[in-house]
Amino acid sequence: MTPSHNDLANAIRALAMDAVQAANSGHPGMPMGMADAATVLFQKHLKFDPKAPDWYDRDRFVLSAGHGSMLIYALLHLTGYDKPTLDDIRNFRRLDSPCAGHPENFLLPGVEATTGPLGQGLAMAVGMAMAERHLNAGFGDALVDHRTWVIAGDGCLMEGINHEAVGLAGHLKLGRLNVIWDDNRITIDGPTDLSTSEDVKARYAAAGWHVAECDGHDADALDAAMRAAKADPRPSLIAARTIIGYGSPNKQGTSATHGAALGEAEVAATREALGWTAEPFVIPDDILSEWRAMGEHGSAHHKAWQEKAKRQPEWGDFEARMRGELPAGWKDAVASYINGLVAEPKAEATRKSSENALKVINAAIPATVGGSADLTGSNNTRAGEMGVFAAEDYSGRYVYYGIREFGMAAAMNGMALHGGVIPYGGTFLIFSDYSRPAIRLGALQQARAVHVLTHDSIGLGEDGPTHQPIEQVMSLRAIPNLNVFRPADAVETMECWALALEDKDTPSALALTRQNLPQVRTEAAEGNLCARGAYRLKSSEADRKVIFIATGSEVHLALQAARQLEEEGVGCDVVSMPCWELFADQPAAYREDVLPNVQPGEILRVSVEAGTTLGWAEHVMLNGLSIGIDRFGASAPADDLFAKFGFTPDAIVRRVREKLSNS
Amino acid sequence: MTPSHNDLANAIRALAMDAVQAANSGHPGMPMGMADAATVLFQKHLKFDPKAPDWYDRDRFVLSAGHGSMLIYALLHLTGYDKPTLDDIRNFRRLDSPCAGHPENFLLPGVEATTGPLGQGLAMAVGMAMAERHLNAGFGDALVDHRTWVIAGDGCLMEGINHEAVGLAGHLKLGRLNVIWDDNRITIDGPTDLSTSEDVKARYAAAGWHVAECDGHDADALDAAMRAAKADPRPSLIAARTIIGYGSPNKQGTSATHGAALGEAEVAATREALGWTAEPFVIPDDILSEWRAMGEHGSAHHKAWQEKAKRQPEWGDFEARMRGELPAGWKDAVASYINGLVAEPKAEATRKSSENALKVINAAIPATVGGSADLTGSNNTRAGEMGVFAAEDYSGRYVYYGIREFGMAAAMNGMALHGGVIPYGGTFLIFSDYSRPAIRLGALQQARAVHVLTHDSIGLGEDGPTHQPIEQVMSLRAIPNLNVFRPADAVETMECWALALEDKDTPSALALTRQNLPQVRTEAAEGNLCARGAYRLKSSEADRKVIFIATGSEVHLALQAARQLEEEGVGCDVVSMPCWELFADQPAAYREDVLPNVQPGEILRVSVEAGTTLGWAEHVMLNGLSIGIDRFGASAPADDLFAKFGFTPDAIVRRVREKLSNS
Repeated sequence: MTPSHNDLANAIRALAMDAVQAANSGHPGMPMGMADAATVLFQKHLKFDPKAPDWYDRDRFVLSAGHGSMLIYALLHLTGYDKPTLDDIRNFRRLDSPCAGHPENFLLPGVEATTGPLGQGLAMAVGMAMAERHLNAGFGDALVDHRTWVIAGDGCLMEGINHEAVGLAGHLKLGRLNVIWDDNRITIDGPTDLSTSEDVKARYAAAGWHVAECDGHDADALDAAMRAAKADPRPSLIAARTIIGYGSPNKQGTSATHGAALGEAEVAATREALGWTAEPFVIPDDILSEWRAMGEHGSAHHKAWQEKAKRQPEWGDFEARMRGELPAGWKDAVASYINGLVAEPKAEATRKSSENALKVINAAIPATVGGSADLTGSNNTRAGEMGVFAAEDYSGRYVYYGIREFGMAAAMNGMALHGGVIPYGGTFLIFSDYSRPAIRLGALQQARAVHVLTHDSIGLGEDGPTHQPIEQVMSLRAIPNLNVFRPADAVETMECWALALEDKDTPSALALTRQNLPQVRTEAAEGNLCARGAYRLKSSEADRKVIFIATGSEVHLALQAARQLEEEGVGCDVVSMPCWELFADQPAAYREDVLPNVQPGEILRVSVEAGTTLGWAEHVMLNGLSIGIDRFGASAPADDLFAKFGFTPDAIVRRVREKLSNS
Repeated sequence: MTPSHNDLANAIRALAMDAVQAANSGHPGMPMGMADAATVLFQKHLKFDPKAPDWYDRDRFVLSAGHGSMLIYALLHLTGYDKPTLDDIRNFRRLDSPCAGHPENFLLPGVEATTGPLGQGLAMAVGMAMAERHLNAGFGDALVDHRTWVIAGDGCLMEGINHEAVGLAGHLKLGRLNVIWDDNRITIDGPTDLSTSEDVKARYAAAGWHVAECDGHDADALDAAMRAAKADPRPSLIAARTIIGYGSPNKQGTSATHGAALGEAEVAATREALGWTAEPFVIPDDILSEWRAMGEHGSAHHKAWQEKAKRQPEWGDFEARMRGELPAGWKDAVASYINGLVAEPKAEATRKSSENALKVINAAIPATVGGSADLTGSNNTRAGEMGVFAAEDYSGRYVYYGIREFGMAAAMNGMALHGGVIPYGGTFLIFSDYSRPAIRLGALQQARAVHVLTHDSIGLGEDGPTHQPIEQVMSLRAIPNLNVFRPADAVETMECWALALEDKDTPSALALTRQNLPQVRTEAAEGNLCARGAYRLKSSEADRKVIFIATGSEVHLALQAARQLEEEGVGCDVVSMPCWELFADQPAAYREDVLPNVQPGEILRVSVEAGTTLGWAEHVMLNGLSIGIDRFGASAPADDLFAKFGFTPDAIVRRVREKLSNS
C-alpha cells in the first residue's frame, strides 16, 4: 500500500524529535508543526534534484526559521541527497556533524542559505527571487524559470527586516517568491498575543502581496494554497495555521516544544499518538521509497531540462555566469584604467573614484547588479549603462532599494547565494550598523557581495555625530571572513574593487570618502599593490626613525607629515594599509619587511586613521602612537573637524615629535 | 492685525531656508513642507514650557526625521526657549553651534532625543509613551498626564525598525502616542514609487493604530486630525499630505529640496512666492510675538500644573524618580547580597547570577523596568515581583517586547530619555548586532539603559556559529560612551549591575554566560572591585613571569592555568578585566600597578577571552600572547567547543609554555 501523507510527514516528525532527543538540544516543535506543509511542498511543488543540489534552475528553498533545522535535514535525507546520512542526523548538533544547530550552506549542498538569525532567510529569499528574474530576463525561460520557496515563523515576521523584505518584494512584484508562514501562534515567551496584535495578512496585502490561508495540517488545503500562490502574479504569503510540536500529546501547541527535547517519555507518547512504530532513526522501507521517489522524479525533471538547456545558444555564457567566473578581459580593462589614472593624477573623493571604477567594471563584467538604499547620488553606485531593475523590466542592473539598508544587504546575500549575479549596494558607512547582521551572515555564508560604504569618517562634515563613523571600520574588521578595504585614492579604489570581485568566497566592505583626496599613487606599479593588504608607499630618505601606517583619507596626511619630518632629518616610511585582513595573510617575511619588529625605541610606529584607536596597538606595538578618534564626532565643515580632531600634517608632526622626544 | 497661520508657518520656512543657505549645507525641504503641521501642533496641541524644558509633565516632541533639524531649531527659538538664539541658528552646522546638522539632545534642552538615524526617533517615542503610561499608573493623572508627538518621514516608515515600533505600540495600545507622517512622496533618490508601493495607512491599521489623513498645508484640517488623534484610544498616525520644500516655486515637490541649500536665487524667489519680505534671520515683531505667546501660554499651564503637583502626596517620590536618583538603601541591599555570595560560593551561569542580582535590584529600586525580546527564560530578565506591562495594566514592570531587538533597544532609550524609569532589556549577545544602532544612539544620547546580553560566547554550544558571538564584545567596546561589562562570576555580576545603574549618563552592556561558572570571588572585598575596570584577582606566589588578563567565563580558566604554572615555578598574576572602559579611566599609577609596563621578555602578558583577539594587543603589548577566537564558531556541546578552540587550562598552559620558551 502506498504510504499516506501522514506516514510521509510523520517520518519528518520522528527524525526531528529523535535527533533532538539524542542531542538533548534543539527545536522539535517547528519541524513537527511544519512537517505537513514541507511534505506537500517537496512532493507536489518544489523543483529539485537530490543528485544535483547545484542544478542552476532548481527552485530555491529557504528555511528562514532556521532553528527548525531538523526539518531540512530530514527532507534532504529522505529525498535522497548524499548528505546528510542517517549517521549525520544521529550526530545532530555534535562536533563535525554537517547537521549543525542551524542549517549552514557551507556544510550541506542542499542548504541554500545559512539561517537562524531571524528574518534574514526570508530577506535573502527576496534576493534569490530577484536574481532569478534578472537572469530570466537575460537568458530566457529555457535556462531560468524557477521559484523561491520559504518557510518562515512568527519570529521572521516580527523582526524589522521583514518589513523591508516584504516591501521590496511587493514593490518589485516578485511573483516567483512564495512564503509559507508557520502560523502556530507561539513564541518562546508564550502565546504570540503576549507581544503582538498585528493582522499579519493585512500587512502583507498592504505591501502588495497575495495572501492565502489554510489549515497547515490538511494536505489538500496546503496543496491548493500552494497552487494559488504559484498562479498569482504577486509574491505570496501562505498563512498555514499549525500546531507547534504537532503529534506530541502533552506538549503540542505550547512553547515547551519550541527549543528543547520532548523528553524520553513524551517522545514515546508521541510515537504512540502518531502511530509511528519504527525505532529511532529508522524509516520504514515503504515510506523511504516514497520519499526517494520524489527525489527521483526531480532528477528526471533535471535531466530533461539539461538536454534542452545545453542546446540553447546562451548555454556557455550562462554556465560561466552561474559558476561565478569573471569574463576574460576584465583585468585588462582594470589595468588600462589604472594606467590612465597614473598618467593624469587628480584629486577626487574615493566615492567618485568608486563610481569611475564601476563604470569600467560594469562594462566588463555583466554579472554585477548594483544599488543603493536611497543614497544613489551620494554613494555614486549608479555607474555606466545599467538600466533600472523594476517590475516592468527585470533586465535592469540597478536596484533602488529604498530606505532599507538591512533588507538590501540581505537581498545581496541572497543574490550572491543564488549565483549568476555579483551584487553590490551602497549606503553610508554609519548605516553599516543597520545592515551589520547581514554583512556578518554573508561572511559566514562565504557570499560574494560588495558593500559600498561612503562618507567614511568625520570627513562627511556637517551631518554630525549621528552620521560620522568612529568605530565602524574597526568593528567591520572584527568580523571573520570579511575583507574591509579603505582605499587612499583613485588607484587604490580600483585595486580594492578588483580584489573584492575576484574573491568568490569572501564578501567585502569598501569604506569611501565624501571629500576629495589627492592621488597618492602616481607611479606605475607591478601588479595590484593593495593585494598585499599593506605596502610601503614612501621609503625613508634619511635614517628611518618613524613608520607611519595610514589608511584611506589619512594616507595623504601621513605623507605630508612624513615630508615635514624628513626636512628635520627624521626618516619616515609611509605604509598604506588598505586591508588588514589581506596583510595578515601575507608571509611573515613580507610583513617583517614592511613593519620590522625591532626593539622599542628604534623605530616609532604611528597609525593614522580617523576612527577609533581600538585595535591599532596590534600594528603600532609597544610605545607606538595611534592617532585616531575615541569619542563621538561633531557637526561642522569637514576641514574644521579635521583640525579639531588633530588630523592635519602639522598636528601629526607635533604629536610625533613629542613622542620621539619622550622615548 | 494678528498674524495669520501662514505668517507663522512662513517664519519657520524662512529660518530653515536661510540657515541652510548660510551653511550651504542641510535639509530645507522637510522643515518647509512640515511648517504648517508643526505650527498647528505647537499652537494648538503641544504641552510645553520654553522656560522649563525639563517640566516633567510636558508633552514629548520627537523629530524622527532628524535631518529636518531646522524645523525644531526654528520652533524652539520662535516659542522662546533660551536656546537656540538667532546667532546659534545663523551658525547652523558650524563648529560649536548647538544647532548641529541633526538635533542633539545633549546640546539643546528642548530636544528630547537625538535623531537622524532613520526610524529610531519614532521607536524611541514608543518608549517615551510607555514610560508615560507606566509613571501615570504609579503616580496618577495629577502628576503624569502627557502625550508623545512625533514627526516622521518616509525614511522613518520604510526602515525595518518602524515595523517593530509600530507593532509594539499597537499591541500596547499607546493612545498617547501620535505620529504625524510627512507624506510628501519624495525620497533622496526621487519619488517614493521608485522603491515602494506600500499602503502605509493599511499597514498601520493592521497593527492596531488609528489612522487619520489630511492636507498637510491646511491648518484646519491638521487641527481636526490632531484632535481626532487625541480622542482615539489607539496610537494614531496622521498622514499629512505635504509638498516637500513648500514655497520654493521652482523646486518644491522634488528631491532637489531634500538635502541641499536652495541657492540664493531660489531663496529670493521663495521669499517672493511666500510674500516674506523680512531680511534673513529677521522675524517681524508681530509674528514673533504671536509665537512667543504660544510659549507663554505653555508657561502658564506649567505653573498651574506645578501648584497642583506639589500638593500631591507622591510629589517627593515622583521628583526623585524623575531626577533619576536611586533610593537610599539600595547599596546596602547590594552589599548584603554580595556578602551572602562570598559566604556560600556556588557555581552558576552569570545569566542566572544576573537574575539573582535583579531580584535584589528590582526590590530596592522601583524605577527599573525590565524585559526581553522573546527570550525571557534564556536571558533571565524577569526577576522578582514585576508584573507585566500591558495595555490592561501599565503598572507592570516587565515588558514582553516580542522578537524586536532593535525596537526594544530604541524603546529603552526613549524610556531613559523620558526619565523616571531605568530600562533594561535582554537578548542574546549575538543579536546586539540587530540592536546595535540603538545601543550606539543611546551612548551618544547619554541615556541610562542596560542591555542584558546573554549566551556570550561559544559557550552557548549547539546553536552554532549563527548564534555564537566572536566579535561582538570587542565591537561593543569600540562604541564611545558605552560601558561593556563581562563579569566572571556572581559577585562580579552584581558589582557590574551596580555600576551600570549608578552611571546616569552612560548606557551599559552586560555580557553573560549561558553555562555555569565557578565563583572566583570568594573573599570579602573593600568596595566594588569591578569599579576599577580591572584588578588583580590572584597574585604570583613565585617570581612573577606571567600576567593573565581574562574576562568573564575565561577568568576561572586563567586561574586554573596559573595554578598549574605556579606548580612548575612560573609565577602568575591573574587580572580580571570586566570593563575595559573603566580601567582606561583609572589613574596611571593604578594601571601600572596592575599591568606593569616592563621591557618585553620580563613579564609575559596573556589575554584569555573566547572572542576575537582584535584589540587585545593594547593590553598584552609587544610579544604578548592573545588567546582568542578569530573565526566563526561551530555547532557542538560547549565543552567540546572549548576544547576545540583551546580554552582549557591545559591548552592555555601549553601555549604559555611555548611562548615562554621562544622568548
